[in-house]
Amino acid sequence: MSNYHALTEAEAIEYTRQLPDLFAPGAELKSREIGDGNLNLVFHISEPATGKSIILKQALPYAKVVGESWPLTLDRARIESEALMIEESLCPDLVPHVYAYDPELALTVMQDLSDHVIMRRGLMERNRYPLFPGHIGRFMAHTLFFTSDLGMNQQEKKQRAGRFINPELCKITEDLIFDHPYANIDTNNFDERIRDEVERIWNDDELHLEVAILRHKFLTHAQALLHGDLHTGSIFIKQDSTKVIDPEFAYYGPMGFDIGAVLANLLLNFAGQEGWSPDAASRADYRSYLLQTVSDVWVFFEKEFRELWDQHGVDRISANPCFQKLYMKQLLQDTFGFAGAKMVRRIIGLSHVADIDKIQDEAAKERARRAALAIGTALIKFNRKASSIEEMVEIAAKSVQ
Amino acid sequence: MSNYHALTEAEAIEYTRQLPDLFAPGAELKSREIGDGNLNLVFHISEPATGKSIILKQALPYAKVVGESWPLTLDRARIESEALMIEESLCPDLVPHVYAYDPELALTVMQDLSDHVIMRRGLMERNRYPLFPGHIGRFMAHTLFFTSDLGMNQQEKKQRAGRFINPELCKITEDLIFDHPYANIDTNNFDERIRDEVERIWNDDELHLEVAILRHKFLTHAQALLHGDLHTGSIFIKQDSTKVIDPEFAYYGPMGFDIGAVLANLLLNFAGQEGWSPDAASRADYRSYLLQTVSDVWVFFEKEFRELWDQHGVDRISANPCFQKLYMKQLLQDTFGFAGAKMVRRIIGLSHVADIDKIQDEAAKERARRAALAIGTALIKFNRKASSIEEMVEIAAKSVQ
Repeated sequence: MSNYHALTEAEAIEYTRQLPDLFAPGAELKSREIGDGNLNLVFHISEPATGKSIILKQALPYAKVVGESWPLTLDRARIESEALMIEESLCPDLVPHVYAYDPELALTVMQDLSDHVIMRRGLMERNRYPLFPGHIGRFMAHTLFFTSDLGMNQQEKKQRAGRFINPELCKITEDLIFDHPYANIDTNNFDERIRDEVERIWNDDELHLEVAILRHKFLTHAQALLHGDLHTGSIFIKQDSTKVIDPEFAYYGPMGFDIGAVLANLLLNFAGQEGWSPDAASRADYRSYLLQTVSDVWVFFEKEFRELWDQHGVDRISANPCFQKLYMKQLLQDTFGFAGAKMVRRIIGLSHVADIDKIQDEAAKERARRAALAIGTALIKFNRKASSIEEMVEIAAKSVQ
Repeated sequence: MSNYHALTEAEAIEYTRQLPDLFAPGAELKSREIGDGNLNLVFHISEPATGKSIILKQALPYAKVVGESWPLTLDRARIESEALMIEESLCPDLVPHVYAYDPELALTVMQDLSDHVIMRRGLMERNRYPLFPGHIGRFMAHTLFFTSDLGMNQQEKKQRAGRFINPELCKITEDLIFDHPYANIDTNNFDERIRDEVERIWNDDELHLEVAILRHKFLTHAQALLHGDLHTGSIFIKQDSTKVIDPEFAYYGPMGFDIGAVLANLLLNFAGQEGWSPDAASRADYRSYLLQTVSDVWVFFEKEFRELWDQHGVDRISANPCFQKLYMKQLLQDTFGFAGAKMVRRIIGLSHVADIDKIQDEAAKERARRAALAIGTALIKFNRKASSIEEMVEIAAKSVQ
């Protein structure tokens, strides 16, 4: 990494010019840094004459969170670009195309998705995306199945797991999702108005047991190559297209962690509708759309995953139908648990979501936070008993009655 | 590996001479190759004048099994020597000391244990080893606890798991233990007299489901650095000393696989007593010693493991007492399942054990085989219901009533 340096907007243009086949020699290019500057530089490089554009994403050697800065491996750029390329090989329409990866600069050159919006923003604007459950269900089914022992050569899977050992970014998840929210830790960040509920969570032994089990799965269950951070801020969307981005947390872990991330973020928006819906009727209506989406995501995922298993399973022993049935039930239960953990951390832990934090009305925001905690803790406590996605829908619906 | 070549007895002496601090310069050394020649060369290097001796173990680039030969990675010598050194750092008295490791020659220089006997041989001679449960219980508790997320830094554990990715040797286990014995496969090797029972096993859906679950755990649950092949042929023993050798199958896997291996091999000898005990009374007596040993191994292991957890656990979340209780129950259940799988493969699969195959009387040998299959299949089917080691003892006792 000795030649690493953070690019300027002008250097990003120079860099782009020496890439083959992207722009004509001598093309007039514009460069704009559009990242939030916390973890990465993101350069939007465009050619006004043709309207053509690309993205240069460069990892920074540190992370800035709430004013603090700590060193963070540049190797995450390799992990992100390799994960994107594997995902592209499995579902080419559902991720940005990677044109090039430069290990020295920790820089990935990829397709510009400016015609999409970040899904979290789209949900806050109360848009509906009828194709989303099919898209994300297919993304998860294909990426999880074909990187697991069920769908790929089991010796190659071990080697691949070795390439995706990701200790620094896993540590962030281990601390911020499976540890800090459950104790009185400095990094936590919650509104004093809900301290009563937070303290109840700090003292809830039944909850802590389930979190310990989930954390142990995150640490030890190398089922499949996960995206690792599959929230609605990692999804670009428009009516006819879904693109999953930013897999820098990718590692071999439990499949339910990815599925749970998607559903948790739908449910965080569900809770946030306290602040976004103009009236009770439209709130109920949008919430019912969100719950239908929660259910549809699982149903699409499960159907596709089972079909892949039946058609592309790589071994005789796993072809046992009772094993498949038990495996899918375990996946559903993991999904409940991880979804719950993902919700709780967004209310108590360091990093929050705009669906709730950007609510203007303080009373509505407090109601949203309490609803999110109610859903999250209920999902965690119920996870090992879950048998149907409708139970998740019911848990959510009950929290806002 | 370009300088690799298999040593001769004379070259083994030359090699030994250039090692510092082992023998005096000019010492008269004797060399004898004592391996079985299937996987490794084992040179016994001794100095008659002093009685001093060491072992040179060199991996061969192929495996010979039942006349066939297939290529096998020399990297297993690195894995074996690194695993031995980790084990030595955790329980120095329970493994041979490693003096040196030479990656080019895939060669490990280690302590000579000729004053011990292979435990399988010792059990066939109906010896008793009262210190064994405490020794092996401590070996497993320390090596499994301190290489797991419970007992070591969780980021270093991930890096270490990467160094112990062991696809070729895991593949042998995956095929020969979790696959072939359950179908009519060429590599199987069983006596025609028990074909009725073997065919029942090939057609037992309930059994196949449990084997699929166990195999999935072997493939995905990276709990701890396992020995990976912890049968009584990998244990040197004498009355006051136990030494675990040959961890070339080491990889990050489910702890119950190691514990189950020890218990399965005690139970294979238990079944084999059909052929080794001179009369019914002494048979019953030695079997009761073996069952007491099965129970003691688990009890010592569990006690030591829990104490390590209480005193050396590295994180707050895992310190939850209910989590520990649940974790130990899951370990016991895995131990039942893996023990059963280890027994079945030694009767139906490619590789057998002398405790049974060396029985002279054919009728006694058949009874021993049927008893081993009865215990093995019962343990597999019962594994997810197990709650106490006494249930394993009862299953074994019932098989020979």
